[in-house]
Amino acid sequence: MRQRAATLTEQLMDAIRNRIATRVLGPGDRLPSVRAFAETMSASPSTVVEAYDRLAAEGVIRARRGSGFYVTGANIPPLSVGEMGPRRERAIDPFWVSRQSLDADATMEKPGCGWLPADWMPGAALRRGLRAIARADTSLLSDYGSTRGSLALRRLLLGWFADEGIDADPEQLLLTGSGTQAIDLVCRYLLHPGDTVLVDDPGYFNFQALLRAHRVELVGVPYTSTGPDIAAFEAALTSHRPRLYITNSALHNPTGATISPQTAHRLLSVAALHDLTIVEDEIFADFEPSPSPRLAVLDGFDRVIRIGSFSKTLSAAARCGYIAGRADWIEGLVDLQVATSFGGPSPLATALIADVLAGGSYRKHMAELRSRLARERDRTAEELAHLGIIPWIMPRGGFYLWCRLPGELDSAEVARHCMDEGVVLAPGNVFSVSQSAASFLRFNVAQTAGERTYAAIHAAISVLQKRAEAEI
Amino acid sequence: MRQRAATLTEQLMDAIRNRIATRVLGPGDRLPSVRAFAETMSASPSTVVEAYDRLAAEGVIRARRGSGFYVTGANIPPLSVGEMGPRRERAIDPFWVSRQSLDADATMEKPGCGWLPADWMPGAALRRGLRAIARADTSLLSDYGSTRGSLALRRLLLGWFADEGIDADPEQLLLTGSGTQAIDLVCRYLLHPGDTVLVDDPGYFNFQALLRAHRVELVGVPYTSTGPDIAAFEAALTSHRPRLYITNSALHNPTGATISPQTAHRLLSVAALHDLTIVEDEIFADFEPSPSPRLAVLDGFDRVIRIGSFSKTLSAAARCGYIAGRADWIEGLVDLQVATSFGGPSPLATALIADVLAGGSYRKHMAELRSRLARERDRTAEELAHLGIIPWIMPRGGFYLWCRLPGELDSAEVARHCMDEGVVLAPGNVFSVSQSAASFLRFNVAQTAGERTYAAIHAAISVLQKRAEAEI
Repeated sequence: MRQRAATLTEQLMDAIRNRIATRVLGPGDRLPSVRAFAETMSASPSTVVEAYDRLAAEGVIRARRGSGFYVTGANIPPLSVGEMGPRRERAIDPFWVSRQSLDADATMEKPGCGWLPADWMPGAALRRGLRAIARADTSLLSDYGSTRGSLALRRLLLGWFADEGIDADPEQLLLTGSGTQAIDLVCRYLLHPGDTVLVDDPGYFNFQALLRAHRVELVGVPYTSTGPDIAAFEAALTSHRPRLYITNSALHNPTGATISPQTAHRLLSVAALHDLTIVEDEIFADFEPSPSPRLAVLDGFDRVIRIGSFSKTLSAAARCGYIAGRADWIEGLVDLQVATSFGGPSPLATALIADVLAGGSYRKHMAELRSRLARERDRTAEELAHLGIIPWIMPRGGFYLWCRLPGELDSAEVARHCMDEGVVLAPGNVFSVSQSAASFLRFNVAQTAGERTYAAIHAAISVLQKRAEAEI
Repeated sequence: MRQRAATLTEQLMDAIRNRIATRVLGPGDRLPSVRAFAETMSASPSTVVEAYDRLAAEGVIRARRGSGFYVTGANIPPLSVGEMGPRRERAIDPFWVSRQSLDADATMEKPGCGWLPADWMPGAALRRGLRAIARADTSLLSDYGSTRGSLALRRLLLGWFADEGIDADPEQLLLTGSGTQAIDLVCRYLLHPGDTVLVDDPGYFNFQALLRAHRVELVGVPYTSTGPDIAAFEAALTSHRPRLYITNSALHNPTGATISPQTAHRLLSVAALHDLTIVEDEIFADFEPSPSPRLAVLDGFDRVIRIGSFSKTLSAAARCGYIAGRADWIEGLVDLQVATSFGGPSPLATALIADVLAGGSYRKHMAELRSRLARERDRTAEELAHLGIIPWIMPRGGFYLWCRLPGELDSAEVARHCMDEGVVLAPGNVFSVSQSAASFLRFNVAQTAGERTYAAIHAAISVLQKRAEAEI
């Protein structure tokens, strides 16, 4: 079953190839010196020399007498975001959950996916909205729309922000094609290849995938039940000088934890000292029973950029996200969105969202979702307990339970077994930059009712436990 | 009126600042040597030394004894795509037309814009489609959709491709949020900062804006009435070793010209010799009276990537584009789209487009558009002739007329005068990498019927002609 382990020389060669593939090293760039690379990789200088010599034989790098090794520029593969990052089996990289969930057919169960089932969504309101749009002016049905996106939707959002205590004007808000696209635009605007970015560990796996596409270094900050570990956060600021910190507030993904007021305040104070910009993704905000501390609210769009979307609450088919922040940054982001997408989200999508939000049924819909999720959370925790799977904390809202497997079993192996049974799981290490969450799984309590899910997990755990016993 | 011209030292300082702002030079990077930069910029070494010294005094760069100047990393501004590229007045950069057109209010006339008026679009079919979607399963109304996008729409497109003689399977097609986003994904996938990309000169202005965001060098190839100038194209391949060539086939933007069979064949032969990848944007294909030579058809998705969209023919509000190409590249592009947008276009938008295309009214709609455009093209050419404005060629289809102003007047000045009268024009140099189209304007014949347009242009020309006479 197992593949031959790569030799240390091969691992070093892969590390260099990876830096070239991810554009950390470009044509003409000098490779690290043998001594420096040996130290970085905890290898002997002679192994590094062998790795460099073999890469030179392949034509990937070239030695220049007395001056080291340089990237030739030959055979540079297309940018591959799927195979970046620490070496792990491609099958279980940060794309695994996304692609398995998005491309799952209707027969599969998806407790690992990141959204609610279609029948939890406000179908009647969406149908009413579509019929209303079908009666609107043809210009709404056929024109590009303005560069910042629907003014009606922006005004609605600004009203919500005002209720939270944030004063902002329509120039500080940009609608985008999705929440992910919003973060991507901000990263393109603010980051430079080679910059360092802080993320939570564990944290949302697609932040890793997205940041790899920006060719930046990721540093994980341990996430506690009251937010990021502040001592580790401060130490990371000092030693890595990151340009950005990307986080979820309001029901952290995957843990469901809530940042405490003290942590939020200290985090912003430390960020100010180091002139750090923070991207706060609040995509789960409306699932909270009551508002938790929010960095953007404390900060008032000075160094915090707020990201949101309607994909979790209303519809992921009407793709739309938004960016709220400093007016001068939004102005630059408008240019960038014109250059890279020509316009923003589909005006049909934003009209639909604005129609549903203005229709008055949204508050009731969210109240129903919250109580339904509370019931499912309890039910799921109880069912999982029968399998020895225990939540790290009981979140106060949202749809995730971040759970530990019994006996430190490897969740990637469980996920692979379950995939064979048509069940998509979200194994812990896809959320972990440090790869320290191998025995965790993230469950979506709205998608974990299926009998097949429990049966498949039970079977997988039994197989792995028996194997572990046999090995002892 | 005119600003003080920048001194040569200031121009050199700007050139370095621009390389830092556009991320061509990053923190820690070494600046070109004084001698090399003096040669590049046709300046004396002493002027370069002065420029470097002043930048060092600002803290932007730092001298290291005996080793040259290095970027410090201090005060690096956010990536600014709006102010990149050759120095020109911000008011008339490649974003000017996009932003003025997209954000124009209903009272303005927009002969410079790049789309048809709403009442030319198939409103009834779009309304029918929306009502059909309002009756569909809630999953269509609320789920993300698959990673490659609607299979129904992909199958429809593949049927069209088969009619042209291209055999491809659904794995070779990826739906995206827009045609621009499709090109942006391809550039992220294939380009490395510092690469060189060939574009047509004149060519679509947003290609320039988009490519600046990728931090690549642009080289323009003169566009003739039968396609790119092949001798210049070949010379550019030899001297610049570009990674990519981005072009419109089927009614070139802005000229409306059509590539000849000989040029298409020679272009592909030369590209093969130099292993060049070609992005062929065919967004105006369905406006042709009969199909012109298409690089993707000759090549069969080997080195040609086909880009398309429905924004010009059906609706720009239902945002959707596509990429067709090699299966392994599409696979990598799927990962990249998941990382940067999570999914593809709005499934509502793709369902709407598929509904209209499958409904059978599309061919009739396009036939009507083509004959209406033919009439408007003749009418517009006639009206413009009264002002001394003459088309470079008479295109065989589409909605553009690429026209020369009388007496070599500056179209940017005409555009500025007309903007004051509420008329958005598209001045020639926004289309030109070499800034050699100052006396051209691009007219959209479907948007040039307004009396105010002709009056404003007439007035602007008179003012400029009088000024020119006074200066003689």
